[in-house]
Amino acid sequence: MPLKEKNLIRHIRRASQRSAAVTSTGAGVARTGIGIGIGIKTGIGDDCAVLSLPPGHELLVTTDFSLENVHFRRDWHAPELIGWRCLTRGLSDIAAMGGNPHAAFLSLALAGDVPQKWVDGFFKGLLDLSKKFNVPLAGGDTAQSPSGIQADIVVVGSIPKGQAVLRSGAKAGDAIYVTGRMGGAAAALEEFMESTKTKPSSGKNAGYFRPMPRLIAGQELRQQKVASAMIDLSDGLSTDLEHICEESGVGAEIEADAIPRAQFGPGNQLVPLDLALNGGDDYELLFTSSKQVASKLGGVPVTRIGRITKSLGMRLIGADGKSRKLKAAGWEHFAAKP
Amino acid sequence: MPLKEKNLIRHIRRASQRSAAVTSTGAGVARTGIGIGIGIKTGIGDDCAVLSLPPGHELLVTTDFSLENVHFRRDWHAPELIGWRCLTRGLSDIAAMGGNPHAAFLSLALAGDVPQKWVDGFFKGLLDLSKKFNVPLAGGDTAQSPSGIQADIVVVGSIPKGQAVLRSGAKAGDAIYVTGRMGGAAAALEEFMESTKTKPSSGKNAGYFRPMPRLIAGQELRQQKVASAMIDLSDGLSTDLEHICEESGVGAEIEADAIPRAQFGPGNQLVPLDLALNGGDDYELLFTSSKQVASKLGGVPVTRIGRITKSLGMRLIGADGKSRKLKAAGWEHFAAKP
Repeated sequence: MPLKEKNLIRHIRRASQRSAAVTSTGAGVARTGIGIGIGIKTGIGDDCAVLSLPPGHELLVTTDFSLENVHFRRDWHAPELIGWRCLTRGLSDIAAMGGNPHAAFLSLALAGDVPQKWVDGFFKGLLDLSKKFNVPLAGGDTAQSPSGIQADIVVVGSIPKGQAVLRSGAKAGDAIYVTGRMGGAAAALEEFMESTKTKPSSGKNAGYFRPMPRLIAGQELRQQKVASAMIDLSDGLSTDLEHICEESGVGAEIEADAIPRAQFGPGNQLVPLDLALNGGDDYELLFTSSKQVASKLGGVPVTRIGRITKSLGMRLIGADGKSRKLKAAGWEHFAAKP
Repeated sequence: MPLKEKNLIRHIRRASQRSAAVTSTGAGVARTGIGIGIGIKTGIGDDCAVLSLPPGHELLVTTDFSLENVHFRRDWHAPELIGWRCLTRGLSDIAAMGGNPHAAFLSLALAGDVPQKWVDGFFKGLLDLSKKFNVPLAGGDTAQSPSGIQADIVVVGSIPKGQAVLRSGAKAGDAIYVTGRMGGAAAALEEFMESTKTKPSSGKNAGYFRPMPRLIAGQELRQQKVASAMIDLSDGLSTDLEHICEESGVGAEIEADAIPRAQFGPGNQLVPLDLALNGGDDYELLFTSSKQVASKLGGVPVTRIGRITKSLGMRLIGADGKSRKLKAAGWEHFAAKP
């Protein structure tokens, strides 16, 4: 049995205060340079949280579900990884605007059969990441769920006025870039689906379930005014690239050989192209640019994978030089998965 | 079957744009004087929403679940009323700070068996209220739910710097006031629980399921600097008063006869005292004050129901003048309930 609502809130409030001082004088000590500049005047325990934004900045808001048996499975993913990934989803959206995250809010519904140990593990993972980027948990809601676990993470951040990197700015002729490598989380998930073991996520591929939001890379791109459009890779490269194309009114051409594929398994082999193109939960950044781009951003390698075209639709150029139509085949959250 | 995720988002985006212009020049035409002053630079369709806050203001953030079979039942509550009440929960929290709501964000998970007609009704109710207070739907998330309907509403608002009315400001000697009348929603719910009819919520008591967030009353109290502490009545008078007492480090004494009880049923009789004290979902405001208070705020009657005491704990003074211990017995969202 989880704690009763009031006790749970008290528990969260204490855990959150230990992890990142939510005080009347503002957020705690910065560990990464991220998350500075906002004051949390009132955190957990009032009708609303009260926050002050840095002057000359606009507000960023994003919300993301993490639902049991849709985004995670209790028998596959350790609770720490579910909590970590829950917050990653929100921070990664802030990264994709080039923004600075300031505070997180969690709505959490738990069925009566969820052990308090699971809840503690979930908060440990979430608060580990919240500490890393100095983004305190400043509020939320709790409820009893009729069945399973439903979490909704809200992250608020800020960005200097007018500087948000949108999905809609890509121009024909821009090159397309990604940070990091694609397909690792999907490959790990595929292995678990074929495995008979439970709790495989604590094993050697656990890293793919503890993705690092690319906040520093996103901020560097915004500061250097290099990116014309940007999105985070949460639903899969093909699907997220299609969002950029649709919002910008352009097409795209990707070189299959150029896509940086994750390494996986005992022989460290590259994941299949299909997983790199269509697997979700990478939480890397995809951006477009007409300018010179550094080979590393925030310590993460950057790779050119194609170009934006005037003609609509997406095309994939194979190793043989032949071009074929590329369909968005990423994760559809309205199909049961994982 | 509901629409697929992408189509659903497109559908919501259009409905939301029709209801309250989310444009690059800012929010739509004000209907009530509420919700003016913020610009939504980027709404639905990017990684984050981008909003600008009025200068000299602080940010307010609140999140609230509306879960099927916890906060509502599909066979009891019409979808329009569920959508309306989902947003009321968030707006009422902004009201309880004395704040100005600016934008709403909805995370919505739907099981495969939820008809699109239900979804349309839900959005109609939510957007009717969003229009009324000029609070556009500016983003959110959608997902397939393994079973049932889970909604999480986020409302962001603003308040002039340092003027938020907190729960923690009540002082011994302050009088305790409420807006409106208590217990109507609980009485209507009780009737439905005893009834064999389905969809009773479209009947004559439907008004209790379409509560009006007390935004104007809350703002008047903040502007007049009258309230020392404030909370909205969502979990029941006894539970919400206890929150004020705990956050302020004080006690309270309530006069049973003074509590304004809702009228209900064919004879318009007053609801039982128990429902007025402990029934949830009234969405009225409870506040404390040492000053003179108007008899109406935002057009809503205001009633003095007791006083804040130095000695901790809550007491109820009966019609016979005898005082007894008052226990917080409001809605516990960790107990199964509709």
